[in-house]
Amino acid sequence: MDYATETWQALARLRETAPLVQNITNYVAMDVAANTLLALGASPAMAHAVEEVEEFVGIAQALALNIGTLSPAWVQAMQLAAARALQLGKPWVLDPVGAGATQYRTRTAAALARQRPTVVRGNASEILALAGTGAATKGVDSTAASDDAREVARRLAAELGCVVAVTGAVDYVTDGRVERSVANGHPLMTRVTALGCSATAMVAAFCAVEDDALVATAQALAVLGLAGELAARQAAGPGSLRLHLLDALYRLDEATVTAGVRIG
Amino acid sequence: MDYATETWQALARLRETAPLVQNITNYVAMDVAANTLLALGASPAMAHAVEEVEEFVGIAQALALNIGTLSPAWVQAMQLAAARALQLGKPWVLDPVGAGATQYRTRTAAALARQRPTVVRGNASEILALAGTGAATKGVDSTAASDDAREVARRLAAELGCVVAVTGAVDYVTDGRVERSVANGHPLMTRVTALGCSATAMVAAFCAVEDDALVATAQALAVLGLAGELAARQAAGPGSLRLHLLDALYRLDEATVTAGVRIG
Amino acid sequence: MDYATETWQALARLRETAPLVQNITNYVAMDVAANTLLALGASPAMAHAVEEVEEFVGIAQALALNIGTLSPAWVQAMQLAAARALQLGKPWVLDPVGAGATQYRTRTAAALARQRPTVVRGNASEILALAGTGAATKGVDSTAASDDAREVARRLAAELGCVVAVTGAVDYVTDGRVERSVANGHPLMTRVTALGCSATAMVAAFCAVEDDALVATAQALAVLGLAGELAARQAAGPGSLRLHLLDALYRLDEATVTAGVRIG
Repeated sequence: MDYATETWQALARLRETAPLVQNITNYVAMDVAANTLLALGASPAMAHAVEEVEEFVGIAQALALNIGTLSPAWVQAMQLAAARALQLGKPWVLDPVGAGATQYRTRTAAALARQRPTVVRGNASEILALAGTGAATKGVDSTAASDDAREVARRLAAELGCVVAVTGAVDYVTDGRVERSVANGHPLMTRVTALGCSATAMVAAFCAVEDDALVATAQALAVLGLAGELAARQAAGPGSLRLHLLDALYRLDEATVTAGVRIG
Repeated sequence: MDYATETWQALARLRETAPLVQNITNYVAMDVAANTLLALGASPAMAHAVEEVEEFVGIAQALALNIGTLSPAWVQAMQLAAARALQLGKPWVLDPVGAGATQYRTRTAAALARQRPTVVRGNASEILALAGTGAATKGVDSTAASDDAREVARRLAAELGCVVAVTGAVDYVTDGRVERSVANGHPLMTRVTALGCSATAMVAAFCAVEDDALVATAQALAVLGLAGELAARQAAGPGSLRLHLLDALYRLDEATVTAGVRIG
Repeated sequence: MDYATETWQALARLRETAPLVQNITNYVAMDVAANTLLALGASPAMAHAVEEVEEFVGIAQALALNIGTLSPAWVQAMQLAAARALQLGKPWVLDPVGAGATQYRTRTAAALARQRPTVVRGNASEILALAGTGAATKGVDSTAASDDAREVARRLAAELGCVVAVTGAVDYVTDGRVERSVANGHPLMTRVTALGCSATAMVAAFCAVEDDALVATAQALAVLGLAGELAARQAAGPGSLRLHLLDALYRLDEATVTAGVRIG
């Protein structure tokens, strides 16, 4: 079966089972990430208190951790949640937002990456920083193309024993041996905040319905990129792109997915 | 006078007086709840620091508390704000988001519920959990229909001495003796995050202009549901639904409200 | 060269250089402020941890501080970031949200204002409160017209040694000697949350590409107001206004800016 058909089947399973995806994410992304998961068909929850994160992981099907607006109390909650997910065998995904921008971010991302995530998803600058190959970054936007981080991602995946996804004009997903590329997406998506964070949340959602994390990650990125392409056809700018993207995610049907997904 | 006409009159008072509604709410809901209150005609404020919550209650006309992304410091602020509202005789509304999902949520919701809220608004799972009748919940989405929690809501209202609203396909509002149902709304609203939280904020706003909390609660839920119905007619998915809902709230006129409100 | 042409040139520089604007802002504003900066052509970052704010200022081109949902830890981070920006000679902008509503807000805003901001931007109530001339305020919305605070703003600017902008139906920008007025904008903008906060973020972005802070502030306010006017022509309410405003910011071209900017 081809990748696009597999992607449709995963999306259909996701909509049918509506997995609960727990997010400990940044303040900027909370609204759009929750809406992305709802439009996709998942059930999002945001819970970050040390008093409840571990118990929450127990009822969730997948976990997404994102350090976009990190602070010590939130990092502690992320570490507890990650440890619990590992213990329970539930997939968890790390988004090392802004790794390389400050030592605190780089250090925190590296520490979480050592807790055996299922998937790490970042832009090229973040993946390079996480691998210790860091050129200077520019805040939370990448200064490198995804292609530049491809080989580093492969080595990082092998070292961490997880899947690493570098997103950009083309996304590269690798487990250290196999690589898949995803050629969906649209440049206007970079003008809408937190779509990278939403991608991470969607990777977690797909990991809840597809055991092969490499496959699940490529599927999630392809579905988001495809929705972005469809949205860009109708959008007059980044405001309308975001709206149409949520509508497109909600409306994706078999014909559109099987014809539009470009996983290679 | 019939319920729909009363609802229009309350909405007209709300727009004329633009009550200040203080919110201590979750990070996901902040943006959409503030925009909902503004579209409705109220003046929203978000303030959560222990250093100022009590003073802020002093200038507000109503208070909405929501535990969606709770943590100890925020819970303390909620307790102080609730106590102050009670002392000043100002209406306050509790949204026990995710009660039943973790012990911390259930315990916190129960403690706040004992501080004499004017109204408690939740989905069926949350109301069942708050009443100690908890079946398992699924994160922050309900696993029960509103109808299932109707009798429990009545007993809870009598026990707490407040109004309890269970929202769902049909909303039920009760003070332990009288019950009103609200048949407005649209299924697509469940695919937009934080509309439940926005409902809670709207209940607080209506309580600022209508002394009978049972009446105010039904009115707020009917107005939000009606705006959702109007929005769904134009929406291609959850992204456009949210936009049209804010526009519809802003544009509601007497003819639409008196013809569309379905309070029974 | 006239003001409108200068504004276009500044916007073109901004789009070309995409300055990194660091924000320590409130939870309500995070999403829309980030999206506003992205639509404008800047690169937003939100980082508030004491562990990293100073290092982040080092890579940013401008800093925006906003006390909308303040708490002690965030205020401490703001003070550190402001001190670092001053030390490095980078522009920073203060938004004293809700000054006058509580003593904590008024005191915090006053303390930050003494740290030599480049620009202070607020509504009339906030500027009056900051100057100690406070009439009562109503939460975070102004109870005074911008015109009422014009003379107070001039004195405050002279006292603080910075630019002060009072925004409202007409915006007034002063450095204590010179004053510019900005007559762009639309009343429907007051029904969308956090557009004032977004204005502050935009002022920071323009300060990154225009050394004269008085000029930069007027330009930022004119561009936002113009985008709001264009959006209002297409909007059916506050939901669609926000969307069209982001699209309009992204699409502004030379002809529209030079014909539409009303700085006097």
